[in-house]
Amino acid sequence: MNGRDAVVLLSGGLDSATTLAIARGQGYRCHALSFAYGQRHDAELAAARRIAAAQGVAQHKVVTLSLDEIGGSALTDPAIAVPERPSEGIPPTYVPARNTVFLAIALGWAEVLGARDLFIGVNAVDYSGYPDCRPAFIEAFERLAQVATKAGVEGERWRIHAPLIHLSKAEIIRRGTAMGVDYALTVSCYQADPHGRACGHCDACRLRRQGFQEAGVPDPTVYAPKGD
Amino acid sequence: MNGRDAVVLLSGGLDSATTLAIARGQGYRCHALSFAYGQRHDAELAAARRIAAAQGVAQHKVVTLSLDEIGGSALTDPAIAVPERPSEGIPPTYVPARNTVFLAIALGWAEVLGARDLFIGVNAVDYSGYPDCRPAFIEAFERLAQVATKAGVEGERWRIHAPLIHLSKAEIIRRGTAMGVDYALTVSCYQADPHGRACGHCDACRLRRQGFQEAGVPDPTVYAPKGD
Repeated sequence: MNGRDAVVLLSGGLDSATTLAIARGQGYRCHALSFAYGQRHDAELAAARRIAAAQGVAQHKVVTLSLDEIGGSALTDPAIAVPERPSEGIPPTYVPARNTVFLAIALGWAEVLGARDLFIGVNAVDYSGYPDCRPAFIEAFERLAQVATKAGVEGERWRIHAPLIHLSKAEIIRRGTAMGVDYALTVSCYQADPHGRACGHCDACRLRRQGFQEAGVPDPTVYAPKGD
Repeated sequence: MNGRDAVVLLSGGLDSATTLAIARGQGYRCHALSFAYGQRHDAELAAARRIAAAQGVAQHKVVTLSLDEIGGSALTDPAIAVPERPSEGIPPTYVPARNTVFLAIALGWAEVLGARDLFIGVNAVDYSGYPDCRPAFIEAFERLAQVATKAGVEGERWRIHAPLIHLSKAEIIRRGTAMGVDYALTVSCYQADPHGRACGHCDACRLRRQGFQEAGVPDPTVYAPKGD
């Protein structure tokens, strides 16, 4: 333990489970934060709870946030279809300003806890179409945190850690596997069924499956039976 | 009308009602955004609905957000007392990172709507102890918006308008009165009763009362009977 507290965004997916393991590996006392934000896939939240329990976090909070009110994404608006193949540019699964919102709430909680470190599992390789998965976004948020908070104004240094930002999915899986992350607990599918079983053909499923193949790691994902 | 859309943060207080009137006066088509964030004073939300209706906004959304989960403020945590006199430094009514969170959600909604202008009624004069009411915060958020969104990455310009930031409460009241803002609809009190009646002695009540006095404008605030 390095004696420091960190807030770790935990979606229940493969990336955030790996990010949590990295934060713990660096010695942080981890406070996991998840969101019930009107996402179609509640299976993600169940996964987040399993991962938090398995990795032994200090605490795990789930903040309710009705992002479905503002719409605009296939992940929160039933009227927008989840695509089955990669799209050009920004995909319909992009939730507008989602990482800005999630980091903002993480920042507020960190301020209450006295933590100055936030961890987020964004990835600029696989999600190159998402503006808020890029290093420029992380840097701008870090600068915002300095002026938006009491601690920052008083000269303490905020750090937004995005340890996966330059890794491929296969590299993430290799790294997590080496640290003992149990990926069977994670759900990546954009439209997992209530049991957490993956559809096998959405963008997120494809990326995940390819990642395990390229990493040479057995894929523990449970797929829903066809036509189920 | 200038033909442009704007998202206006509307708390139900005096400042945000004035900010909405300013945005409308500049010709924006206004989309009002309020939050049910676990604040003690639900009377604020009822006031926001009255103001939105009275000023004729294009639409008014209320996003639910359980900020009480993260605690840390007298406004969301029943265990922290609302102070009755001005405090040194950052007061206990400060909600950690609140304006960061609110602007982040406004940014997401604006992206969905195609709006590039956000209005927020922050004030650096009366709320000098709040880090997220200062010009440096507004500027940092504007820079973040440029890199956090599709529109920003594509070169469109985001603008975060904080038209009250350098005004005193009296100046705000004079300006709003000149534009016909009905302050009887607004609620500023941190602990208003369910009828929206003000306590008369919290920080927010004192600032508001002094503002009307200094502005030479009759105070339409309804105060709760003593001992009520």
